This record gives sequence, structure tokens and C-alpha cells, in this order.
Amino acid sequence: MSALLDAVFAPEEIRRIFSDEAHLQGMLDFEAALARAEARAGVIPPAAAVAIGRQCEARLFDLGALAGAAAKAGNTAIPMVRALTAQVAGVDAEAARYVHWGATSQDAMDTGLVLQLRRLIDRVETDLARLSAIFADLAERHRRTEMAGRTWLQQAAPVTFGLKAAGWLSAVERHRQRLAELKPRLLVVQFGGAVGTLAALGDWGLSVGALLAEELSLSWPDLPWHAQRDRVAELATVLGLMVGSLGKVARDLSLLNQTEIGEASEPAEPGRGGSSAMPQKRNPVGAAVVLAAAQRAPGLVSVMLSAMPQEHERGLGNWLAEWQTLPEICTLAGGALSQLVEVAGGLSVDAERMRQNLDQGNGQVFASAVAMALAAHLGARPAHELVEKAARRATEQRRHLLVVLAEDPAVTQHLDVAELDRLFDPAGAVGLAESLVDRALAARRPSDR
Amino acid sequence: MSALLDAVFAPEEIRRIFSDEAHLQGMLDFEAALARAEARAGVIPPAAAVAIGRQCEARLFDLGALAGAAAKAGNTAIPMVRALTAQVAGVDAEAARYVHWGATSQDAMDTGLVLQLRRLIDRVETDLARLSAIFADLAERHRRTEMAGRTWLQQAAPVTFGLKAAGWLSAVERHRQRLAELKPRLLVVQFGGAVGTLAALGDWGLSVGALLAEELSLSWPDLPWHAQRDRVAELATVLGLMVGSLGKVARDLSLLNQTEIGEASEPAEPGRGGSSAMPQKRNPVGAAVVLAAAQRAPGLVSVMLSAMPQEHERGLGNWLAEWQTLPEICTLAGGALSQLVEVAGGLSVDAERMRQNLDQGNGQVFASAVAMALAAHLGARPAHELVEKAARRATEQRRHLLVVLAEDPAVTQHLDVAELDRLFDPAGAVGLAESLVDRALAARRPSDR
Amino acid sequence: MSALLDAVFAPEEIRRIFSDEAHLQGMLDFEAALARAEARAGVIPPAAAVAIGRQCEARLFDLGALAGAAAKAGNTAIPMVRALTAQVAGVDAEAARYVHWGATSQDAMDTGLVLQLRRLIDRVETDLARLSAIFADLAERHRRTEMAGRTWLQQAAPVTFGLKAAGWLSAVERHRQRLAELKPRLLVVQFGGAVGTLAALGDWGLSVGALLAEELSLSWPDLPWHAQRDRVAELATVLGLMVGSLGKVARDLSLLNQTEIGEASEPAEPGRGGSSAMPQKRNPVGAAVVLAAAQRAPGLVSVMLSAMPQEHERGLGNWLAEWQTLPEICTLAGGALSQLVEVAGGLSVDAERMRQNLDQGNGQVFASAVAMALAAHLGARPAHELVEKAARRATEQRRHLLVVLAEDPAVTQHLDVAELDRLFDPAGAVGLAESLVDRALAARRPSDR
Amino acid sequence: MSALLDAVFAPEEIRRIFSDEAHLQGMLDFEAALARAEARAGVIPPAAAVAIGRQCEARLFDLGALAGAAAKAGNTAIPMVRALTAQVAGVDAEAARYVHWGATSQDAMDTGLVLQLRRLIDRVETDLARLSAIFADLAERHRRTEMAGRTWLQQAAPVTFGLKAAGWLSAVERHRQRLAELKPRLLVVQFGGAVGTLAALGDWGLSVGALLAEELSLSWPDLPWHAQRDRVAELATVLGLMVGSLGKVARDLSLLNQTEIGEASEPAEPGRGGSSAMPQKRNPVGAAVVLAAAQRAPGLVSVMLSAMPQEHERGLGNWLAEWQTLPEICTLAGGALSQLVEVAGGLSVDAERMRQNLDQGNGQVFASAVAMALAAHLGARPAHELVEKAARRATEQRRHLLVVLAEDPAVTQHLDVAELDRLFDPAGAVGLAESLVDRALAARRPSDR
Repeated sequence: MSALLDAVFAPEEIRRIFSDEAHLQGMLDFEAALARAEARAGVIPPAAAVAIGRQCEARLFDLGALAGAAAKAGNTAIPMVRALTAQVAGVDAEAARYVHWGATSQDAMDTGLVLQLRRLIDRVETDLARLSAIFADLAERHRRTEMAGRTWLQQAAPVTFGLKAAGWLSAVERHRQRLAELKPRLLVVQFGGAVGTLAALGDWGLSVGALLAEELSLSWPDLPWHAQRDRVAELATVLGLMVGSLGKVARDLSLLNQTEIGEASEPAEPGRGGSSAMPQKRNPVGAAVVLAAAQRAPGLVSVMLSAMPQEHERGLGNWLAEWQTLPEICTLAGGALSQLVEVAGGLSVDAERMRQNLDQGNGQVFASAVAMALAAHLGARPAHELVEKAARRATEQRRHLLVVLAEDPAVTQHLDVAELDRLFDPAGAVGLAESLVDRALAARRPSDR
Repeated sequence: MSALLDAVFAPEEIRRIFSDEAHLQGMLDFEAALARAEARAGVIPPAAAVAIGRQCEARLFDLGALAGAAAKAGNTAIPMVRALTAQVAGVDAEAARYVHWGATSQDAMDTGLVLQLRRLIDRVETDLARLSAIFADLAERHRRTEMAGRTWLQQAAPVTFGLKAAGWLSAVERHRQRLAELKPRLLVVQFGGAVGTLAALGDWGLSVGALLAEELSLSWPDLPWHAQRDRVAELATVLGLMVGSLGKVARDLSLLNQTEIGEASEPAEPGRGGSSAMPQKRNPVGAAVVLAAAQRAPGLVSVMLSAMPQEHERGLGNWLAEWQTLPEICTLAGGALSQLVEVAGGLSVDAERMRQNLDQGNGQVFASAVAMALAAHLGARPAHELVEKAARRATEQRRHLLVVLAEDPAVTQHLDVAELDRLFDPAGAVGLAESLVDRALAARRPSDR
Repeated sequence: MSALLDAVFAPEEIRRIFSDEAHLQGMLDFEAALARAEARAGVIPPAAAVAIGRQCEARLFDLGALAGAAAKAGNTAIPMVRALTAQVAGVDAEAARYVHWGATSQDAMDTGLVLQLRRLIDRVETDLARLSAIFADLAERHRRTEMAGRTWLQQAAPVTFGLKAAGWLSAVERHRQRLAELKPRLLVVQFGGAVGTLAALGDWGLSVGALLAEELSLSWPDLPWHAQRDRVAELATVLGLMVGSLGKVARDLSLLNQTEIGEASEPAEPGRGGSSAMPQKRNPVGAAVVLAAAQRAPGLVSVMLSAMPQEHERGLGNWLAEWQTLPEICTLAGGALSQLVEVAGGLSVDAERMRQNLDQGNGQVFASAVAMALAAHLGARPAHELVEKAARRATEQRRHLLVVLAEDPAVTQHLDVAELDRLFDPAGAVGLAESLVDRALAARRPSDR
Repeated sequence: MSALLDAVFAPEEIRRIFSDEAHLQGMLDFEAALARAEARAGVIPPAAAVAIGRQCEARLFDLGALAGAAAKAGNTAIPMVRALTAQVAGVDAEAARYVHWGATSQDAMDTGLVLQLRRLIDRVETDLARLSAIFADLAERHRRTEMAGRTWLQQAAPVTFGLKAAGWLSAVERHRQRLAELKPRLLVVQFGGAVGTLAALGDWGLSVGALLAEELSLSWPDLPWHAQRDRVAELATVLGLMVGSLGKVARDLSLLNQTEIGEASEPAEPGRGGSSAMPQKRNPVGAAVVLAAAQRAPGLVSVMLSAMPQEHERGLGNWLAEWQTLPEICTLAGGALSQLVEVAGGLSVDAERMRQNLDQGNGQVFASAVAMALAAHLGARPAHELVEKAARRATEQRRHLLVVLAEDPAVTQHLDVAELDRLFDPAGAVGLAESLVDRALAARRPSDR
């Protein structure tokens, strides 16, 4: 409703895909293609198809009047068909007879929607490819940048920033795969007439359907799917999953961006992330937009899923429930992705600060490395308990874990000072981080590498 | 995003409460009232308050430019403050110094939101009162209109349409009560400055806050609530509950409206509920809009709830997640209510058809009455089993239950034909429906009766 | 919590997959396989692997004690590891040293979960294949069974029951495809140690991981995925989509099962669907269970999605949020599917009643056929309006539409009585229903046909 | 399903409220009270009521057998009534005739549920009172403990820990109020017989209902509410709101508990919050459990809301959808509350670390104080911009903001060094924190102070 607020969540190009004009144009593209298909099948005169096609431009319509009529009609296709018919009749009375020939409102609305969704998916695929490249680059460049791995928001054991980025990358690749798999199911026409029997077109129904699909470069599915909503609901879920993964990156970034941690920060830009009360603030606006999307999408996805059990040949209420929900999910997803491309693409990574934070915790972050080294001598459980006690002592006494361990004969009888020292070296403590980065990079599509 | 689709779900007056202009005006009303409060408290010059107040009109602002800036700033208050300052400066440079004095973005956004919510609640309360009157009237008029009570979508035992309406009424009354209870918690100013300490106003903070509240006819709460979101989330839940109850009414109406049942139908109106393929259709558009809202609201409420754990003194992402979600819930709720007032107010009730449907099921709907009459002689369980068998027999033989029972000596030894006959009289089988209607009517507010 | 209530929603075999024993056994299977893999890689002694493997049986553990410890530990793996170590130590002190070697809690919990999910998917795939066969059979057998197609719960135009079943079938086939696509992503081990670097295993990490995967017949993914939750969340969404489609079938069935419609009913069985008050009731319990799942799954899926943005290398709270949510989705989905197999497999279809209902509406259900026939003469819009008026007249006068049309010269000038008559023949009015059934049957997997 | 996992989320006492035994006992308490009420009203013999009452003990029933029967019956009341009748008949055949007299399954299930919910609410109210006292104490004790206020996860301006605790307190008080308001709506009997007309009890229905309510210390509502689900859904929402606020506290605590921040930590206890891989870990298990609840509850609440539009006199599927969902919400809410009482009650607050963190940011956290002081001389906007530039300079040069400002003549012409120094004093920069704490404490119930 508020374009002001919409602007925070998605760039103009994405919002435009789901504007009034685009919604109307989607339906008009269906009507134009239908007329062409029917002309090719010999169902309506070719001249009618040409005349109808010429009027199928959203800019020729009065959106305000359509909105008024939609409120009464209960959908936007009925007023569109009426207005289009009038429009065509103004130019060619004969052609007007063939507007929306043999179709029903849902045919226009669903197929129009699919056309909008295709644009959105194109944009998302482009941005996912960009994000994949960005994360691959971060993984590559920071393959040896050690930092604290953190679990339950506590320093746990060392990782590299490259491995973190590889994890993000790996999820992005899976989302690309999911989108590729869903496209054949989603990018199909909906065309069934009143109740999905194509009864209005006699024997021509199937060939008109196939030609209609060809006209729109969509597929012609086995059946009309007006009352089977899994195709559209699936897109909601796949985008919901994607937003969840984007949210994970944004969560990480926002936590790394905390004043007290300061390991990564969003690209600075005048006017970006300020505060009306605090002059020093550089708020991580990009992460916030992504996280907001990750907070909103799940509830919206649940609406799409709960609307699936639609009554008989066309639902009552539940079909309507999709109309704004799916565009909202698409816009949030597209917007979040777009933001993250910008944020990740210009990310400042502070490797020095990462190292400092790793050093700050009095060596506790190396406890598991020591425990594992001792396990070879004592067994896993006793080693764990020995180091657990030392770690607690170190905390209580605010001393470095290395120092405490070096004083403990139970430790030093197995590990000498040099060995202990080596265990507290971050470079050695990141395990197979680098090999894992390689694996993640190798798993990218050959064309992207 | 699409105003075309918005128009299906809510009337203009409600959508206007959450328009760009209204969102902006809410924040400007905050700024104007803040200036006046600060002038009254002696914090800023009275002339400045007057000059600021004069510029606090949404129509003076360029919404497009604000949208562009909002995308960068990450909220709408920062560009608003900047534009308002420029606006005031154009007229009175001295006054411009005091714009947004001591406040933060969230103060303007949250208080502005509360002002919008107050308008919505006013409208909802008015419509709930109207719906209460409509349902009370239906309950009263149809207190003796017998119909099939249905459980699990099966005819179960007779009820009256009046009792059904009384059930709807009773829920409406509870929602009115809930709204009344929440208002003192919600209709409060948010004013705390950068982090809720009112630090920018020295000792005047509390008195400015109290005066600000007075200026806006809101309350002045114990604490700023910027990071405690239960106040706004509560409205989401109360509206969510209300929409659930409206959805229950719409569900009932849409089921009664089925071609094969035909007991109630929506008011007819030209252009309402037609179909682009089926000329005979009169779709229950009103019920569909209400049910769509009932399908959408729960997911949106879940977003408001899941956004509550906001970080420290201002959340990152989760606060943003509220911005469009709550207005959407409000619009859907207000729209659904408004539709139901229209539908229920003009409802056609077909008492004759109700009676026919009751008669059509071969008397099975009276089985529980017979069982209860037999229970006095046989005990509850044996009576139940006896009638269960007779009912199954009647179904298999497609005969009337009364006839089957009248042939069964196990029955007739306790109930003679006259008694049996009486048990199959709908008027007698509706139990205390009428007394219950009276109770529901009596439970309405005295002023509404 | 309540096994009584669980029993309503899923059969024993499915509930057992997510029992305490199965959860524990999943983790123990991980531990046993890990030990074997490490022995094969030369990391631990083969004898230790054997000794550990022998203790990895859930029945050897005290579930009550584990529950108590889990409450404190905050997960179930820590008490499991402790108990397993003690268990092994009781038999072979040396082997006990190597329990859980190099792994972390999440490795055991996530991999154990994947093993449980594989069992669930197996069951779901089997049941989907059965449901596909049942729907194919219904589509085939009822390819010419005419019935009212209904949109917005109003009779719209004739369809066949076969086409309805084909629609259900088509969705089932897509869900089978989705499950097949997700399996390679989901059926992988999680193995990364403390923070996903495999640091505890030195150079052997990757080979141990690959062997571990082999031992469990799972795949070895590019990276540990402890903090990337899309794999498990995806299963939630795919099952959520499936439950939505099952709910659509159950919605249709429950509506067809209404006393006043009576076109289809669930298989009868003693003790099934009774009522404690109404002896005649045969409640559609199966449909209710499926619809309940369709009502519950969306909210649960939203939890899985909203839990995805997990902090750093292991989330706090959000990982925990998955633990019961995913099993609940799986159980509901498996239970709903299992119910629908039973209900659809034993469905009573009343073709006679379908025909009666089609005849009852005074011919209005043929309005679109007439309109289309007239459109050839008058153009689409004028024909629609002509029939619209006739339909309204017929309703008001409670007369058959055919009679009203036959009196209207505007109609009869184009369509003679014979043609009109033909248009009111259901068999002719179902369009391409039969060809569409064929298309849906042909789209099944060759092996299923 | 898994008691192991349940144990992580709620203590035994709360889980017990929703156990199988408790569910059954709730229904049995209804049956016993119904019999007593009917005996008092003269509807059934007093001796029957006594005999029935004696058998209404859950321990007398075979839960396994009930579960099996429930799966078929589609609810738990039908098998319960059957088993109870058999049980009573075994002792007193005459009394067995009167079991469940005039009631329906839903009467037993809903009223039984209300009895369970009352126990849960009692527990929640007790724990909320404890939490209120704990937060009041923290607010009081830390009224002058300065710390960094943080917005968008960035240091923003100083607050006190007391003010933070006061914010938590204030939300707790509102939740207590909400619970108090909802109780009269929720704590009522459900009693209406088959379809809510009380038809089975002739003229005694209302008096039996009133006596039944009296027997159970519940209220007797205007109408049976079997198909109006707002009463139970409201509890879901109020608990959902409460969990949201608890989640906010847990979020704050978990962030303060980060290794790099270390301002607050959960009470330590052996076996609590360890790790199976990292010996040094003390995971904030309590916060995690609360956050997990805050993640799960919203989706579950959405299920309760979306299940509200129940068909006619008893829904199909949607009523079933409530059965496990509401207990799950209650258990999560009760568990989260109980955890937070424990965590907050034993919280370690590190005031020294708070001060250090405040000092660490090179004075940026005082920027708004300086801006406000300059605003008196320059106007709000120019002052903001001046300090914004200085802050950026300080960041770039890694110097203290005070130093940078002290070099800037544009600043020093208005603020001398002493004044600047004063502005960087945390104690002065926390504004009205202390007065606000007083307001929050004063707003507690008199009896709690």
C-alpha cells in the first residue's frame, strides 16, 4: 500500500514487475496470445487477432476505473475483459466478438501471473549468479584469513572467513539448482475455460492450448491447473528457502558488524544507514533489509501453503489469498537478493580485527584442539574433561589457557611446550578449511568457474 | 503494490488510512505535536513550534523523492526529517533549528503509526457495532427458523438460524471487549530519543513527553517502548482473532450458499460476483473476500510475533519487518469487516429451503432426539446403539428413519407412534435454541440493545 | 506430548520413525558408522570400532536418564555420547577412548536425523505411488461420469469425476518428482566437527567423511552444512506442498460427502467416524485428518523457514527450533498421506447422485455452453449478456433455463430447439474431459502405467 | 513425539499438564462434574453420579487401548465415553445408563481442555510474578549501571542496565494484565450437546449447565462455543505475545553473553551448556530454549488462527488442528517462562565489562550528546552534520571522538573542553534512565512492590 515503505525493501526494477501496469499487461499478453493462437488454429479470423492484439497494451487502460470495477467483480480479469472488449469494439466491432474467446478469468489471471513470475525468476537467477561469483571470490581471497568460529554466539574454535563464505556459496548453488528444477513445472500456461474442460472450444481446445503456450514461450501442461496450486506455491517455498539462506548471510554480517566485533562492514555511501538522532551511526541497512525479508517471508509462504486446499474447480477465498501474497514474497525475495549482492559485493573485511578477536579470548578458542591432541593419549572423554577443568580455571583466574595448561602435569606429561604452542596457532587450528573451500569452489557450475 | 488488487480487499476509506500520505502525515503530526509540546515546556521558542506546525502537511512533500531517499536511509523518518527541516528553513531559518528536537526516527515512526492505528480502530469499532446489530436482528428474527445443524459437514440435529446468528453475535461482542481492553495499552506515544533515555532533553524529557501525549490525545506510558513490541503485536493478534471469527461467519454463509443447499445468499447487485465465462454465476464475492482475509491474516500475525525479539535498544531487520505487515493486517481486517457488514446486512435467508433440507435426509437428523428419549428407558449407551443400528438400516434401505423405528419392537415398546412423531418435529428438536438466543441478546452492551 | 492424540493423526509405523528410540538410534548409527569409517581410515583401532558398534543399540540405554540430562545439556547428543562412552567403557576401556572421535553433537544429531528422514521419505514415496495408482484408476473408471463442476462453491459447468481425479493425480506426480529432486541434496552426512573444519582429524578428515557416508549409504557433500539449513528446510517445504495437495483432495471429498450432495463417501468401517451424541453420524474422519494436517503444516513450515538464519557456525535457539518441528511435519504429512490412500482406495462414488445434482439446478449449469454457442453468432460479450439475463429470469421465475431460452426469439433465431437440447446434454458439455484424462494418465511414469 | 526432546523445552511439571493422563483426566473431570450437576438438577439419580464419579480416574484406563480406538473414532472422547461406560457398568449397571448424559464429545474435550489450560495459566501467572520481581530487582540494583545502548547492533548512546531491565519488566506487567483480562472469557464450560441446543436435556439444560460450571469452578457462558474458537485461540495469541517478549529478553541476554561482549551470563551449573567437542564452552542454554520457543510459537499461533473458520456447528479438520497445537504452545510458553525465571534469577551482570565496552568505541557512543549540545547553538540539523563529519573523521583516523572534536573550531567556539569532557561522561549521558526506572517500578501492582 505504501510505496514509500516498499522502496525500502526492493529496487524499482523488481517492484515494477508486480505493479498494476505489469499485472494488467500480463493478462493482456494472455489475451493477445490467445487471439493469435485461435487465429492460427482457425477458430477466429486472423484479422480479429490482429485488432485484439493492438489493444492489448496496459497504457491504454484506465487503472482507476478498473480498480473500482474489480472491487465489485471480485477479480481483476472481469473488468479487464470488459474494458478490452470495449476498447477493441471502438476500432473493430467484428474483432470485439472474439475477445477472451473460450477462456475464463482464471486463465487470464494465472497465465498473466506466470509471465510476471518468469521476469522475476530471470532477475533472481541473474542476481544469484552474481552472488555466487562474489562469494566464490570472498572464499578464494580469504581462504587463509583466520577468525573465530562461533557457536551459540560463543567463540568456539578457529575457522577462516573463506570457509564461512564457502558455506554461503554452497547454499546459493543449491538455490540455483532448485530454481532450475522448478521452472519446467511453473512456466506453463493455465488454459481450461470455465471449469477446466476447454468445453468452449470444441475439438480445437488442445491445439489452441498448445499454440497459446508456443506464443508465450511457455509449456503446455498435461492438464489445466486452476484448482491445483502446487505450481505457484512451490515458487513461494523455493524463494522462501532462498530468503532463509540470504538471511543467514545477513545475520552473520550483522553480527560481525557489531561495534565490539567489527570484523566486517557494509559498503559506505552518503545517506546510507544514518540515524536521525545519532550522528556517528552507520547502520547495516542492507543486512536489515535482508533480515526483514527473512522474517516476513515464512509467514507469507505459510499463507500460500494453507491456501492450497481450494474447493472443487475454483476455490472461494483461498485463490484470492494468493493474489497479493505471492507477489509480496517475490518482491521481498528479489529485493533481499539485490541488497545482498550490493552488500556482499562491497563488503569490507577486517582481517586484522578477526585476528585480534581470536587472540582476545585468552586462548579458550583453542581448547578443542588441545583436547583432541590429548585424546590420542588419554581417550576422548578424559581428555575433554581435563581441558574442561583447565578452561574453567583459566576463566576464573582470567589467565590464558595456554599458561594454565602448561602448569598442569597431567597435560605436560603428554604435550610439551612446543606442541602446546603449536596447538594455539590459528593457522594450524583451522583444520581442512582450505580443502573445504576448494571443494565448494569445485562444486560450482563449470560455466561459472 | 498493486492498487488494483488492493481494491478487491478493502474499501477506499480503509486503504487511505495506510496510504503513503497517511503514513507521512502520521509522522508529521508527531513532529508538529512535539514542537508544540516543547514550546509549552519552554524547550523551544513558541514561534518555532508555530512555523514547524505549518509545514507539517503531507501534501507539501514530494513522495517520490522521499521514497528514493528512504531506500538508502533504511527508514522513512530520516528523509522526512530532512525534508521537513528544509521546508521549514525555506520559511523560517530559526524555526528550522528545532525540527525533530530531541527525538529519534523511531519516535516519529511509532507514534505516527499509533495515530494511524487509532483511526483504524475507530472504524473497526463502528463496524463491529453495526455487525453486532445486524447479527442481533438476525438472531431475533430467526429465533424459530429451524434448519439442519451440521457437524463435520453432515446433517447432525436441528438448530435454528437464530441460534447460528447468536453464535456469530457472541463472538463479535467478545472482540469488541478485546479491542476496548487493548486500547489503553496501544494508544500511547512512543518518545524516548536515541536509546529511550530522553537524554537529549535534559530534565524536560518527562514533561515534554506528557505534553506530547496530551497534544495527540494519547497516553504517556511508563517507559518508551521502542524495543518492546508487544503493544503493536497485540493489535495484530486481536485483529487476527477477529478476522478468524469473521471467517467463520463467511465459511458458514458460503456453505449455506452452495447451489445444492441454497439456504442463504449474498445481496445481489449489478456487476457483483459475475464470471467471465459463466453467465449464470452469482459468486459470493463478499464471503470470498472475508475468507481470503482469514487465510492471510494468520501468516501475517505470525510475522509480527516472530519479529518481537528485537535486539537491544532497536532491532535490526525485525523492526522493519513490522512496517508493512501491521498495515496489511489492519487493511485486511478492516476490509473483511466492512464486507461482512455489507453481506450480512443484506443477507437473503431462505427459511423454506432450510426446512426442505431438513426434511430431505430421511429423518436421520432426528436420531439423537430419539436416542435420548430411549435413553430414559434403556440407558444412554444401549439407546445410542439401538438407534445407530436403525439409522444404518434406514440408510441402506433408503427409507425414513421414523418408519424403520416404528417397525422395531425394541423401540415401540418404549415410544409409541405419537411420541415418535413428536420427536421428528423440528420445532421440538431445537432444544433451548430460543433461550440461548435470549441469553446472547441479553449479553450485549446495554447501550446496544 | 499426548500419544492419544498422536494416534489420531498418524499410524504407528510413521510415529515410530520419530520415537525417542528412533531418534537415539539415529545418533547411535552415526556413532557406529563413524567408528567403522575411522577404523577403515586407520584413525582408530579396528577393535575399538567393533566394540563401539556393539553398544550402539538404543535398547541398551535408559531414556529417562537421557531426558533428564538433555534438559540440562540443551541437546540430546551430549548425554548420548556420555552414556555411550560409559557403556563401551564397561566392556572395553580402550575402545571407550574412541567414542565420538573428532565429531561434535550436531554431527550426530543432524546425520541421525537424515537417517530418520530417509525412512520417512521411503514410506512417503511408497504411499505416493499407491495414491497415484488409485487416482489413475478413478480417472480411468470415471472418465465419463458427469458431475457438476463447481467454482466458488456454486455449480458452474459440467465436468467428469474422472477429470477431477486426473487433477489430483497430476499433482501427486509432481510431488513425486519434487521428492526425487530433493533427495540428492538431503540424503548426505553432516560431519564437520566443532565448527565445520574437521580440525580434529588432521589430514584424515575428508577420507573419514567419505567413508562415513559410504557406511551409511548417504552422500558426502562438498561442505559440512551445520549452519546452512536449506537441506532440511527444503524437505519441510516439499512435504508442506504435498500436504496442501492432499488437503485439496480431502476438501473436495468432504464437500462431495455433504448430506445434501452425497456424491462420494469414505469407506465405512465399524467404529469409524461415529459420534458420542448422534447415532446416525458417519463422519468423514479420513478427510478430517488430512485437512487437519493441511491446516497445521503451513505454520510448521514457516517455523523451519524462519529458523534458517542461524548465527555463525551454530545457531542459538533457531537450531533447537527445528528439532521437533521437522518430525512433526513429517509425521503429519506421512499420516495424512496414509489416510488418503485408505480413503481414496475405498472411496464410494455415487454416479447417480452426481447426475441428479447436475439435473437439479434448473439447467443453469449449462449456461456457458449456450453462451458459447450464441457467441458464434453474436460475439462473446453480447452472447454472455443475453444468457446472463435469461439465467437471471430463470432463477427469479424458478423455471428451467432451457425453457426460458426457448421462449426468447433473440436466442431461437440462432439456435433451434434441437440445438438447444443438445447443449443441455451433460455428455456433450464436458468438453475435452476425456482427452485431458488421457493426457494425465500418459504423463505418469512409464513404470507406473 | 519424542519425550527426549520435549525435556529440553519444558520442565516435567508443565509437560505433565498436557500428558495423556492429564488429557484423559480433564475429560473425566467433565464427566464426573456433569453427573453431579445432573443429579443436583434431578435429571439423573444421585447414586449414579456417585458411581460415575468413582470411575472418573485416569489411572483406571488403558491408554494404549484408547489410542487405538481414537485412531478410528477420530477423537479421544468417544473411546473415553465407551470405556467409562464399561467401567461404570462393571460396578453399577444402573449408573452406567447415565454416563455422558445429554453431552457430546466436544463438550468433554473442550471443557477438559479448559481445565488443563487453567492449570497452565496458574503456573504461568506464578512464574510471571516471579519474573516481575526478578526484573524489578535488576532494575533497582542496576539503576546506575551504565552500559552501551545499542541500536541496529551498533553502539548508539549510553543507557543503564537498570533501564534495560525496566523495559523487560514493563512488558511482563502488560502480559500479566492480558492474562487477567482473558481469563473470564476462557475459563468457562463448553456444554451444548450435539449441536449446541442442549436439546437432550429438555428444560433442564440451562440449570445443568450452570451447576456444571459451579462444580468445576468455571463460568457458565451465554452460549455454547463449540464452533466459535476465539476463546481458545485468544490464549494462543496471548501466550504468543508473552513468548515474544521473553524472546526479546533472551535475545538481549544472548547478545550480551557473546565472548567479545561478555556483559551478562547465565548461571553456571555442572552439566549445563557444555559441548561434545569444545571443552571450554558454556553455552547459554536457557536463552536458547527461550529463543527456540519464540521461533516456534508464531507458526503455531498462526495455525490456531487459521483454524478458526470452522464449518457450521462443528468443523471438519480445523477443530482437530487445534488439539495438539494449543498444548504445544502452552508447553513452549510455560517452558520458556520457567527457563527465563531460572536464567534471569541467577544472572551474572558484569558492570565492569559494560563500562569497558562503553569506553572501547573511541567515544563515538557520545556523539548524540555532543550533537544535542551543539544543536542549542547551531540548530538540530547543522549540529548533527557537524558531529557526523567529526565522527567519520575519528573512525577513519582511529582516534577518539573527543580529541577530534576538541580540534574543531566549529565545535570549540560553542563548547569548551570542560563542557566536552562532561558530555563524554557516561553517568551524565544516560538521561532520565533513573526516573524511567522509577516509573516502571511504580507501575507494578501495589501488591508486588
